[in-house]
Amino acid sequence: MGFQYRTLAKAVRRRTASSISPPPQPPLVLSRSFAHLSSEFAGKRRAPYPRNFGIAFDIDGVILRSESPIGGSPQALKRLYDEESGALRIPYVFLTNVGCMFLAVKWALMVLLTSNFSLIFQVLQGHTPFKNLVQRLENELVVAVGKGEPAAVLSEYGFKKVVSIDEYASCFPGIDPLAPYKNWEVKQVPKHNGVSEARTSTDNICSQRVQAVFVVSDSIDWSRDIQVLCDILRTGGLPGREIGHQPQLYFAHDDLAYQVSNFTFKAAFPSERFGLGAFRIALESIFNRIHHDPLSYTCYGKPNPFVFKNAEAVLKQLVSSCPDSGLAPDNASTAVHNFERLYMVGDNPDVDIKGARQAGYPWFSILTRTGVFKGTGNHDKFPADLVVETVEEAVDYIIRKECS
Amino acid sequence: MGFQYRTLAKAVRRRTASSISPPPQPPLVLSRSFAHLSSEFAGKRRAPYPRNFGIAFDIDGVILRSESPIGGSPQALKRLYDEESGALRIPYVFLTNVGCMFLAVKWALMVLLTSNFSLIFQVLQGHTPFKNLVQRLENELVVAVGKGEPAAVLSEYGFKKVVSIDEYASCFPGIDPLAPYKNWEVKQVPKHNGVSEARTSTDNICSQRVQAVFVVSDSIDWSRDIQVLCDILRTGGLPGREIGHQPQLYFAHDDLAYQVSNFTFKAAFPSERFGLGAFRIALESIFNRIHHDPLSYTCYGKPNPFVFKNAEAVLKQLVSSCPDSGLAPDNASTAVHNFERLYMVGDNPDVDIKGARQAGYPWFSILTRTGVFKGTGNHDKFPADLVVETVEEAVDYIIRKECS
Repeated sequence: MGFQYRTLAKAVRRRTASSISPPPQPPLVLSRSFAHLSSEFAGKRRAPYPRNFGIAFDIDGVILRSESPIGGSPQALKRLYDEESGALRIPYVFLTNVGCMFLAVKWALMVLLTSNFSLIFQVLQGHTPFKNLVQRLENELVVAVGKGEPAAVLSEYGFKKVVSIDEYASCFPGIDPLAPYKNWEVKQVPKHNGVSEARTSTDNICSQRVQAVFVVSDSIDWSRDIQVLCDILRTGGLPGREIGHQPQLYFAHDDLAYQVSNFTFKAAFPSERFGLGAFRIALESIFNRIHHDPLSYTCYGKPNPFVFKNAEAVLKQLVSSCPDSGLAPDNASTAVHNFERLYMVGDNPDVDIKGARQAGYPWFSILTRTGVFKGTGNHDKFPADLVVETVEEAVDYIIRKECS
Repeated sequence: MGFQYRTLAKAVRRRTASSISPPPQPPLVLSRSFAHLSSEFAGKRRAPYPRNFGIAFDIDGVILRSESPIGGSPQALKRLYDEESGALRIPYVFLTNVGCMFLAVKWALMVLLTSNFSLIFQVLQGHTPFKNLVQRLENELVVAVGKGEPAAVLSEYGFKKVVSIDEYASCFPGIDPLAPYKNWEVKQVPKHNGVSEARTSTDNICSQRVQAVFVVSDSIDWSRDIQVLCDILRTGGLPGREIGHQPQLYFAHDDLAYQVSNFTFKAAFPSERFGLGAFRIALESIFNRIHHDPLSYTCYGKPNPFVFKNAEAVLKQLVSSCPDSGLAPDNASTAVHNFERLYMVGDNPDVDIKGARQAGYPWFSILTRTGVFKGTGNHDKFPADLVVETVEEAVDYIIRKECS
């Protein structure tokens, strides 16, 4: 456990030391549980916290804005731990669609390390639920779309036959007639546990039926990706062939727009920029013009209720996997832990509050005013169970309510 | 006149001699009239052709397929000229949305030069009618979108303050958050009679209101162009500012898809590729999600009836500007020449025939079977006035009907 902690901390220090304004990078792909990171801080003395509630925090606009903590978030985070022993007392996760996972991890580590608290937390991203599809698609050819290394994300989840759309498109000469106008540098095909290692010839990919497409993050080359995806989806996974049954299509989330942070780019544009939801709208509108059946797809990410179910499952797992943390009953059993209340603390009514409402029991939604929502009172269309100014106020409320 | 002919012929020879498979290039931008190219072939002996009809030919699928003539097109073309004198007898234009203008020019020159016919013909592209907007927008800041040098196309038409979307986007740091992922080579800003010569600082462009956007040809970078266009169109032409009245938006045509020729790309994909119409659908669907008013725009190109009105005007001008060609009456006057019939010869019912029908008198539509349309009988939704096998058959019919 100690090794993992030192390795991670070194990575964090390396990234932050590289430059004052780090070059834009895709979010650090670390979606596995941190619950095993360190047991050296496990508390011996147990604080009398109830065991029947947990918290999910949005990141952008709740915990952080760019790379700066907001709303008293460091103090709020510390209150989830036992001051004396440093043990985790209240199970929680960070639940984000787009938000820079690296930023959240870095910030949380800084807060916890300086306070000598146990390094136990989880960051759940939009694509985290893709992992649940491995069992069915593990050995099937799937295509990954997105910036950075989308195929690597899927490979980490256990997909064994995944290819990026960059590599897939290169197998079909002429599939993108605009390619000669795009003076791309030739991308290095990443080494990962996917098709790129097993593949011996492009003919191999061209003749295999694509069973599913995963849009992991923002498409970079919309014109090519929309063309290639339409070719795949119309033909049952074999571009250039006859019309066939549409393969499965999954999106990590459906956020139409987002505010770019100054951390990622030196000069962020003052208004929101289009996100994955905009790409989905473009693809769907074109596909529905050329195909007899409307596009069929699943969008994960908030407000999809599945995401909240998944968060609940992760919180349960967190409780059961940390018997020494103070979360489990003294006589730890293998019984499934059930929550009576799960708090979603978010700033975006259309995403965070809508999602919690749709997920239903045991979710309780808390809306902060430090991000998207700035109104007085509550949101009209998706009213939260509680509106507060900051995340610190939210945690205050939760602890007073649960531990009174 | 002789100089212009020699210069043009040299350019054609240079392009065709460069390689067996020439690298992809944007269509040669030569939209001005060729009517003044050569008078040395002007006929002295006048054939008794009526003066009250003219012809518009589509290119792809009617005259050419890739770079190969089809349907007896060389013979059809020669019949529009006097065999003995080589003078033009029947006024005609090539009327195309996408089709490679360079191919048409090259082919026509070859046919006419080998036959010693006069080099009088016109190629009208989708963006040709943009010229009619110069009077209103000559000194206003306009943005040009498309592959190759879209700003140069507009500058040639007379717009004095035109900037490409590449250059315009570069004035707004952070406007495209995906830019760091696009390893473009930095494009050289072309030297043309536009803002790039007059501009002294990027602040100058940023503070000027964009009055119109012209989509001249396919957008290369859809994600950036859709983002920037939405920024321009929502804010009345000042990205990053408050909501404003939408500037004018023009598209050169609205073709959803097209068949890529093997001339342009070594290996053309077997099925049609998305065209400008697909980009328009993507932009419109996203814009209408984020703005209170639906996107307002004008699509030129067939089947827009304006294109046919414009073709009629060009044919009239052709007749009146070639008094020695045999087209005008013996006692040439300045009276406007009126056509009783104009023939549209095309292969695409949704574009060529629909357009001629909507334009109405004096248009007569002729549908060939050498391109998009392969059916027996006539087209159900947009039936042509006449269906023939080839363009040669179409010209036969026209001459017999008009000259009987």
